[in-house]
Amino acid sequence: MADTHCLESLIQALRRLPGVGIKSASRMAFHLLQHDRPGALLMAQALQQAADHIRHCSLCHTFTENEVCATCLDPKRDRSKLCVVETPADQAAVERTAAFRGLYFVLMGKLSPLDGIGPNDIGLAKLFARATEGDVQEVILATNFTAEGEATAHVIGEALRAKGLRVTRLARGVPAGSELEYVDLGTIAHALVDRR
Amino acid sequence: MADTHCLESLIQALRRLPGVGIKSASRMAFHLLQHDRPGALLMAQALQQAADHIRHCSLCHTFTENEVCATCLDPKRDRSKLCVVETPADQAAVERTAAFRGLYFVLMGKLSPLDGIGPNDIGLAKLFARATEGDVQEVILATNFTAEGEATAHVIGEALRAKGLRVTRLARGVPAGSELEYVDLGTIAHALVDRR
Repeated sequence: MADTHCLESLIQALRRLPGVGIKSASRMAFHLLQHDRPGALLMAQALQQAADHIRHCSLCHTFTENEVCATCLDPKRDRSKLCVVETPADQAAVERTAAFRGLYFVLMGKLSPLDGIGPNDIGLAKLFARATEGDVQEVILATNFTAEGEATAHVIGEALRAKGLRVTRLARGVPAGSELEYVDLGTIAHALVDRR
Repeated sequence: MADTHCLESLIQALRRLPGVGIKSASRMAFHLLQHDRPGALLMAQALQQAADHIRHCSLCHTFTENEVCATCLDPKRDRSKLCVVETPADQAAVERTAAFRGLYFVLMGKLSPLDGIGPNDIGLAKLFARATEGDVQEVILATNFTAEGEATAHVIGEALRAKGLRVTRLARGVPAGSELEYVDLGTIAHALVDRR
């Protein structure tokens, strides 16, 4: 309809969000316009601000508003350890454990040949440069334990070992608090192999 | 982190969308910033435009950018029939059937006492004024066949019948293309009662 051009544009724009189809987008648009116009304006502003100001840390590649992120600038971090993760969300998960005080490199993706995502698309050259400069003594591969995450870890591990770096991978095993009966076989098999 | 204030704001803003929690909001923010910045800007613009320009049709209460929506202005519509629906999406669903050429009244909600939504919140007074003015001879209740939709239809039906209007409800029955074996009992029972 000619007189709901704005509504159509909004629904089409919302469909660009991952996991949002035409029905969800319509429901979102209806909710914002009918029940939460301040939310719509807030979101418009937040999107604009984020798109304008957020860029990648020149050292670890994570999202930041500055040239170098706060974590990379923190003088208390252990500069000999570099933890490689897929996304800022994964980095946040590792940070929440408070078990790692080194630095990070955020791939912002993973190798995924089926989707046409190769080494150049996830900044591997930048990682190799970062890992071989100065203080880094150990690279900890903390990519996800999915097929693509494992492949990514494998490729990075091979390349960095060839440069003489110490490369480790997060341990696979039985999750804390779980009962063996309900843990899948592959996980138990890995936990047996990696027993200590 | 102090240097990702924009990112935090964006995630918080996206959480205001219905059905979006913290993990979905983070994934959406990551997707937009990493893979679709034009999409983020487009969405910001669409939200701003929609919030600025979209208001309610003074006749049928649906979303429009004008004083009166295109459907209400259409001289080819049958002004003796008024179809009451809950949302613009429901209106669009009825329109797609091409089986109704009358006018609409869009409640923009439904009676929902548990959520504190009463007759005043869904503009029933406006509907009653609209239904009793001029040309309307039949009001077709096309609210959803949920508990709340049925209750809404009941309240509206009673009030309009008291004003001497003809009030009908969409037929309940077995959906087209379905096999009786897989249709729920309540639907078959209704289809038996309403048999023709």
